[in-house]
Amino acid sequence: MKRAEYARRGPVPQDVIECVTRETPTPGAGEVLIEMLAAPINPSDVLTLTGRYGMLPPLPAVGGNEGVGRIAGVGEGVTMPSGQLVLLPVGTGTWSSHLVAPAAGLMVLPEITSPERVQQLAMLTVNPPTAWLLLSEFVTLASGDWIIQNAANSGVGEYLVQLARRRGLRTVSVVRRESAVAPLLAIGGDVVLVDGPDLAKRVATATHNAKIRLGVDAVGGGATDRIAQCVTVGGTVVNYGALSGDPCTIAPASFVFRDITLRGFWLAFWFRNATVQRQQEVFGELATLIARGELVTRVHATYPLEQIKDAVAAASAGGRDGKILLTTATTPTPP
Amino acid sequence: MKRAEYARRGPVPQDVIECVTRETPTPGAGEVLIEMLAAPINPSDVLTLTGRYGMLPPLPAVGGNEGVGRIAGVGEGVTMPSGQLVLLPVGTGTWSSHLVAPAAGLMVLPEITSPERVQQLAMLTVNPPTAWLLLSEFVTLASGDWIIQNAANSGVGEYLVQLARRRGLRTVSVVRRESAVAPLLAIGGDVVLVDGPDLAKRVATATHNAKIRLGVDAVGGGATDRIAQCVTVGGTVVNYGALSGDPCTIAPASFVFRDITLRGFWLAFWFRNATVQRQQEVFGELATLIARGELVTRVHATYPLEQIKDAVAAASAGGRDGKILLTTATTPTPP
Repeated sequence: MKRAEYARRGPVPQDVIECVTRETPTPGAGEVLIEMLAAPINPSDVLTLTGRYGMLPPLPAVGGNEGVGRIAGVGEGVTMPSGQLVLLPVGTGTWSSHLVAPAAGLMVLPEITSPERVQQLAMLTVNPPTAWLLLSEFVTLASGDWIIQNAANSGVGEYLVQLARRRGLRTVSVVRRESAVAPLLAIGGDVVLVDGPDLAKRVATATHNAKIRLGVDAVGGGATDRIAQCVTVGGTVVNYGALSGDPCTIAPASFVFRDITLRGFWLAFWFRNATVQRQQEVFGELATLIARGELVTRVHATYPLEQIKDAVAAASAGGRDGKILLTTATTPTPP
Repeated sequence: MKRAEYARRGPVPQDVIECVTRETPTPGAGEVLIEMLAAPINPSDVLTLTGRYGMLPPLPAVGGNEGVGRIAGVGEGVTMPSGQLVLLPVGTGTWSSHLVAPAAGLMVLPEITSPERVQQLAMLTVNPPTAWLLLSEFVTLASGDWIIQNAANSGVGEYLVQLARRRGLRTVSVVRRESAVAPLLAIGGDVVLVDGPDLAKRVATATHNAKIRLGVDAVGGGATDRIAQCVTVGGTVVNYGALSGDPCTIAPASFVFRDITLRGFWLAFWFRNATVQRQQEVFGELATLIARGELVTRVHATYPLEQIKDAVAAASAGGRDGKILLTTATTPTPP
């Protein structure tokens, strides 16, 4: 078996990760051997390699936090059928050709053979619930309400546009380049604008002065304040990322004179605090939508595990159109 | 009569304000003529002169937002006794030797002849309720809890230390110069530290790793994030000013990985939204404490109205030890 490991963290993520060959492990009691099909490289994975993430595994470590595979073997006391499609729990080290995991932590998925749909399910655990919870946990929104987000062409951003539309919400999507506008309009974005100093004015014009009570920021720097300026008095801005690499900057006038609240969202806190029932509710709804092809994100490129360095370099570069995934050369079908 | 007026706003506040002589007005029905005794120059007054405040009066305007005076004449239907000590309502243009105001908006004060105590009452309306509400409106605190604030040697800062102590709260006061430490310890500050890059570490040591759930920021810039780093996971930072002149800067890691909420406080919103009963409760408690000399702030210097330019220049300069007040040359006693 092969897997992508790292023994140190460093500023250039592709320099610390490498694909190594290991002996395929044998599942113990209650465990299963999984043959991985697809696993994405998320921004949080890149931050983990560079040491700038909020939770870092002990070294050496295997990369990857989510993915999809099939049961290839079972340990004592496990009755899962060979070939069963399963979703790995978060934080498992999914950049592997094979891995052993406790059967109890796996989410059993409906049988799907389309490689594209399997890839979409491999991205279920991190970005879709982030988008779902950004829309649910901070401001009570009703059908017809407007929300605004930047980095709207990111994985989370596109899920957010699709989920908002399903709830009858209207979206302002802010992007950093003109070429990102059309794809967001195509997936149902109501207003898509390129960021700039006069953003609030253009948003007011495009939405006919709508009162926007929720702003979502994944960029940081001055972009945070530009989102804050678009949100109505008493509104909330939620930050969940820092694509600019700069700290969030907000004019005290935005807080003080406009009563804006700035908060953060981290899925790790939600996993820690949400009840099992709530987690099942969120993942159940999202899995159904993704399995049906009603919630999708774009894939920029797929790489075999052997090309992990190229894959990580591509994932940490800007200007992509979609996610980078690690996949097996041919997605196997169940036996 | 004399009053300090301005017909335009500009970057140098003492350049736009001037003392002019006007005919003393006559109170109409329901109005009173007030002879002013003392009125402070607050940071918000300076920001109003420079045009950087959240609410600007139409021009030309009279400066000043709070102060104390005595009834010098009454209009039809008013029975207030001549010489009665009264508190002016917020936003009245109090940098005047005399002014006419509706009797109904005045808060009647207990008789006090000490000029120092009268000066303290003149500062009742803006800073004490700001400190009171910063402690009350954002985080539910219990006796023994710690809070942290920067600009702790400001007017609001010193009121906050005194009010916190009365409630059994413990305070970390952060200041920007060593000479500001001793006065804060003298009024009951528990821990007083000079700001710097290792602030969170020194706070943890000084408080024996106390969980601080409320941080108060009036500085902005990098100082906001330093306060955020001192607050425990899930805590709240409230900004109410920008003494550094820089926007608030917070690392996304503080929001996202530490679940910090950043909010703003503006007394103007509170005046707009709080019930009359709640306002009376807050001002009643504060007036009693100040009249008894149990809640005080330091006065750096007093100026007659004629020296308004020097007074405003002194108020807008840094490094003061206390407030700048406009006073009558000899505080008159009631006839």
